[in-house]
Amino acid sequence: MVERIQDVAHLGAVELLTPKPEGTLWFFHDLFGMEIVHRDGGTHYLRGYGDHAAATLKITPAKAAGIGCVAWRATSPEALERRVAAIEAEGLGLGWSNGDFGRGRSYRFRDPDGHAMEIYYEEVRYAPPPELRSTLKNLPQKFTGRGVNVRRMDHLALFCKSVPENRRFAQETLGMRLSEQVIFNQGRDEIGAWLSPSPVHHQVAYVADAAGVHGRLHHVSLWVDNRGDVMRAADILAENGVFIEAGPSKHNNSQGFYLYSYEPGGNRVEVYSGSYLIFAPDWQTVVWNEQERGTGVYWGATLPASFASYGTPVVEAQKSNATVIDPM
Amino acid sequence: MVERIQDVAHLGAVELLTPKPEGTLWFFHDLFGMEIVHRDGGTHYLRGYGDHAAATLKITPAKAAGIGCVAWRATSPEALERRVAAIEAEGLGLGWSNGDFGRGRSYRFRDPDGHAMEIYYEEVRYAPPPELRSTLKNLPQKFTGRGVNVRRMDHLALFCKSVPENRRFAQETLGMRLSEQVIFNQGRDEIGAWLSPSPVHHQVAYVADAAGVHGRLHHVSLWVDNRGDVMRAADILAENGVFIEAGPSKHNNSQGFYLYSYEPGGNRVEVYSGSYLIFAPDWQTVVWNEQERGTGVYWGATLPASFASYGTPVVEAQKSNATVIDPM
Amino acid sequence: MVERIQDVAHLGAVELLTPKPEGTLWFFHDLFGMEIVHRDGGTHYLRGYGDHAAATLKITPAKAAGIGCVAWRATSPEALERRVAAIEAEGLGLGWSNGDFGRGRSYRFRDPDGHAMEIYYEEVRYAPPPELRSTLKNLPQKFTGRGVNVRRMDHLALFCKSVPENRRFAQETLGMRLSEQVIFNQGRDEIGAWLSPSPVHHQVAYVADAAGVHGRLHHVSLWVDNRGDVMRAADILAENGVFIEAGPSKHNNSQGFYLYSYEPGGNRVEVYSGSYLIFAPDWQTVVWNEQERGTGVYWGATLPASFASYGTPVVEAQKSNATVIDPM
Amino acid sequence: MVERIQDVAHLGAVELLTPKPEGTLWFFHDLFGMEIVHRDGGTHYLRGYGDHAAATLKITPAKAAGIGCVAWRATSPEALERRVAAIEAEGLGLGWSNGDFGRGRSYRFRDPDGHAMEIYYEEVRYAPPPELRSTLKNLPQKFTGRGVNVRRMDHLALFCKSVPENRRFAQETLGMRLSEQVIFNQGRDEIGAWLSPSPVHHQVAYVADAAGVHGRLHHVSLWVDNRGDVMRAADILAENGVFIEAGPSKHNNSQGFYLYSYEPGGNRVEVYSGSYLIFAPDWQTVVWNEQERGTGVYWGATLPASFASYGTPVVEAQKSNATVIDPM
Repeated sequence: MVERIQDVAHLGAVELLTPKPEGTLWFFHDLFGMEIVHRDGGTHYLRGYGDHAAATLKITPAKAAGIGCVAWRATSPEALERRVAAIEAEGLGLGWSNGDFGRGRSYRFRDPDGHAMEIYYEEVRYAPPPELRSTLKNLPQKFTGRGVNVRRMDHLALFCKSVPENRRFAQETLGMRLSEQVIFNQGRDEIGAWLSPSPVHHQVAYVADAAGVHGRLHHVSLWVDNRGDVMRAADILAENGVFIEAGPSKHNNSQGFYLYSYEPGGNRVEVYSGSYLIFAPDWQTVVWNEQERGTGVYWGATLPASFASYGTPVVEAQKSNATVIDPM
Repeated sequence: MVERIQDVAHLGAVELLTPKPEGTLWFFHDLFGMEIVHRDGGTHYLRGYGDHAAATLKITPAKAAGIGCVAWRATSPEALERRVAAIEAEGLGLGWSNGDFGRGRSYRFRDPDGHAMEIYYEEVRYAPPPELRSTLKNLPQKFTGRGVNVRRMDHLALFCKSVPENRRFAQETLGMRLSEQVIFNQGRDEIGAWLSPSPVHHQVAYVADAAGVHGRLHHVSLWVDNRGDVMRAADILAENGVFIEAGPSKHNNSQGFYLYSYEPGGNRVEVYSGSYLIFAPDWQTVVWNEQERGTGVYWGATLPASFASYGTPVVEAQKSNATVIDPM
Repeated sequence: MVERIQDVAHLGAVELLTPKPEGTLWFFHDLFGMEIVHRDGGTHYLRGYGDHAAATLKITPAKAAGIGCVAWRATSPEALERRVAAIEAEGLGLGWSNGDFGRGRSYRFRDPDGHAMEIYYEEVRYAPPPELRSTLKNLPQKFTGRGVNVRRMDHLALFCKSVPENRRFAQETLGMRLSEQVIFNQGRDEIGAWLSPSPVHHQVAYVADAAGVHGRLHHVSLWVDNRGDVMRAADILAENGVFIEAGPSKHNNSQGFYLYSYEPGGNRVEVYSGSYLIFAPDWQTVVWNEQERGTGVYWGATLPASFASYGTPVVEAQKSNATVIDPM
Repeated sequence: MVERIQDVAHLGAVELLTPKPEGTLWFFHDLFGMEIVHRDGGTHYLRGYGDHAAATLKITPAKAAGIGCVAWRATSPEALERRVAAIEAEGLGLGWSNGDFGRGRSYRFRDPDGHAMEIYYEEVRYAPPPELRSTLKNLPQKFTGRGVNVRRMDHLALFCKSVPENRRFAQETLGMRLSEQVIFNQGRDEIGAWLSPSPVHHQVAYVADAAGVHGRLHHVSLWVDNRGDVMRAADILAENGVFIEAGPSKHNNSQGFYLYSYEPGGNRVEVYSGSYLIFAPDWQTVVWNEQERGTGVYWGATLPASFASYGTPVVEAQKSNATVIDPM
């Protein structure tokens, strides 16, 4: 067995596409308390107060909601080269770019399902303006106390046609650990896979898209430090007329304490806390069958039917034979 | 024994005097998340999102920090008359006024130490403007999620020269329950008394003023629903350069979870949660001696020396032979 | 208008009937962390660590689950006499008894729906054995840290055939405040009423029993100080195979943070925190119609259908023409 | 620059020496809710409910309190070999052993200060007995709800004569990241260093021992998921007469929410939550000088003088010229 070396450090940034950029900005800035650090035309770059990178969320106006580019940071320049070689060997590479805001050169690729991704190493360290400097030296930015005040980007979940194919790509080509899996029909149908490059439980999940299409987003997830903050987020969303799809409740899978809502552009967004860390280098993937998985909830609400079907871009039944969805 | 009837319903409103009204308003509005509901010249009236009355905090510009008028709401028109008669019998009455913002006619008086107070029954129910309407029908105002976002006025603590004299007034003339007491020197020196008209542990505390003066404020206290909110308040105060005098920690006396800071005008303000309710009609006052009281802390920080001596208005050593302090 | 005087101080104790007394004891002692303070044959008396009375929960073996006697404490001997006179005037009195464990003479009666109740004033103050003495002088008993470790009895909800009739009895004969109401069909069908003798939001709720029978219990509710403790209770119940019917989630009505489960005997038991206090003497009852009430949930799980129909004793369809249910 | 590869996965287990083994066991089993999984003579092996390994805490009777062997798990067999080679190159190796309970062959060594350590890869996965099986498939053991109920071993802090020497060993020989540092006297005196092999903020801290001796323990730290659990621990410790040295409060350095107590054997034990994760591969160590460091507290209690001086084994002034302390 070849020794596994961690080449991906962490999820670097997520780009969300939105047909209602003003509403989406209001959601992440006013309600979620993120800061806008950069603008480029109609595109905005935001950060949570605890994010190390200058920006971790890119909001891009588009015809339809959905996921843009998912950026992964490599652990070193050498690790970056190794992963690019592996991606190219899979035939999924798209080539080098000069890097998005706050990042150096990046290598663009697609996962097997067609989601746009890139990997990079060079990153500009965030330097806050005076009014956003924290009194805590180890905090990259002031805790402003505005709204939900999310700490950092945590993970995302991607719908895909074939969970095994994409899960193997994340494991073997990107080098992630498979933390948990949901497999139905006596081991035949892999419904979901939760993967991470680090002790964090998962930074990407692949979930089977019943619509049979490619390239959709299930949700992006922002971290808060306490379950009380998730419940406070529920109060804030409820007061502001934002649809809460599920939670606050506790998943069995991942043990995460979740709250799912849709931002005005239509993308599902989670406020997240809890979960658990995985340190064991010989971790045995926890596999759930139909009965063990149940509704995916340890306690709290059963997840509604929309949780299994709704994603962005929204697909109509007749369009579901499309291959890769391009909401741009 | 004469049957005790509850004639005071609750603490109605507190007036704070401040030499720095802009800073004080920033503190209560921007950091504490209270709403400004009324202005009268330089005076402002504020409320917490869960306060039933239109306004519970009045901020009045003055030469020095301190406490203005403390308003108590009676349980009924009859109760109001009974209490006015009792106050007049004590010779502490000042007469009727037309009532402050949001209240009907009120009877003014002073407690034995000289703090200005009034009692009233008629109150204008708060009607929020459209942007402050809550989606929760039983919440008088939207939870905005701004800063500490205190829920309501909870209680206040008053420095006084003679705790027994003022405590007896609150018990016998106002009809409050004596929840707890601190008595040192083998029962001779009453250092503090915690009183309430309702199951809430205390709505007023009388504390011995070592400066030997009259009429000072120890602190006013705003309620948040959870200890996590008190700790969140600590983060917000720390990030905004506001002095934290003590906490978040847990008192032994009252079991309250506290955080004490000074607003820019100099008044000590507490963010408070926890504590316990007292329902027993035959409650036996819990009395603490020196050893039992210790530092007043069950766990957390020992209270600093300033906690026993600092009050508003601030007194200089040479001025401490003053009788009643008038910061106006 | 006659002045309303508070004659009932608080809910004193609740008696639960159980066909599985061992399981019920395991539930309240081992899981909920209550102490057993007295035994009388197969009957057990328990308390939460913060209960002022010696015992607040009586567990009585019976053929079927259900509610036994609900005891209310009066605010004074005079108040007791006034309430007894009022109850007798309604023709609902049953007469004086010598009092249950820890209480003096008590007056027995039935509410209009037939639930057994009593009212008393004299109460024996709890004196803990050495191993249960708290290091906190104002805590009646040591916080043991066993399981859920509920603090105190909070309230109960009673099914009844006619909500208006029972609600009026609680208001007019017992003297409680009507905090909230659910009324459907344009004001014609009163579905639920939440009442309390004190600033606590409710200590008894009357809920319409769709089974059309009398005398059933909807749930009894135990208090914990924090929402985190409610979620910890969910973990403990889930780990011990106890059915969780709903929550942890937040009600719209009452704003309470709830967790409903069934103890092994079949009675629905709630772990409860949050909610809000009502101090205003001129409180306007908050009335919810169908649309406002929705599922009764502000955020979290929708309440399952069983929440509206399940009560104890369990009734079979054909038995539902019974008048008063006697599970003894 | 040579690419840094993570060869140490995590802190595997900590051995505590105690002159009062019964008291120490009571502390960790009854109060902290850990399970005893193995006994070997008077030595006991314990685990938190969330620990992946069978045992993470070894309690060994000894003449004096102190730290026994600190075990580190390697990320792979190859990583183990690389680290052993590096340790041997430093001349600090002691040789291979057959491994302690639950582990395969282990390589013993000492850090420059003389603390006993070992590194291993093979580990027996924990298999709970039926009564300790969790209903959560991804939880290695039932959450029992007993006492503090710590989730897992988190980190330890070691006193040492030379922080730079030991810190460099952890960085260069074991391959850890230096998260934070405290350096006084304009960069001359390194007082403390916080290191970790993973995104967890620190799993070992080296702190300057003012006593000028070697081999002492500052504290071991157990993790709970929420700050509410830390405060609950404070209640439990206070109720059981266990000395609380500091907290619950929030450190500035590490942002951890801490509670420090001494177990009956005398070792300082922390209950810990919060803190933050470090994902950036190019993390710049946060360095604190005297003014920035202050008392080491962001809010809450100032740490008492004992926090800087007390360690185990306890040293008397005259003994402080000892080189390596052997409490066995």
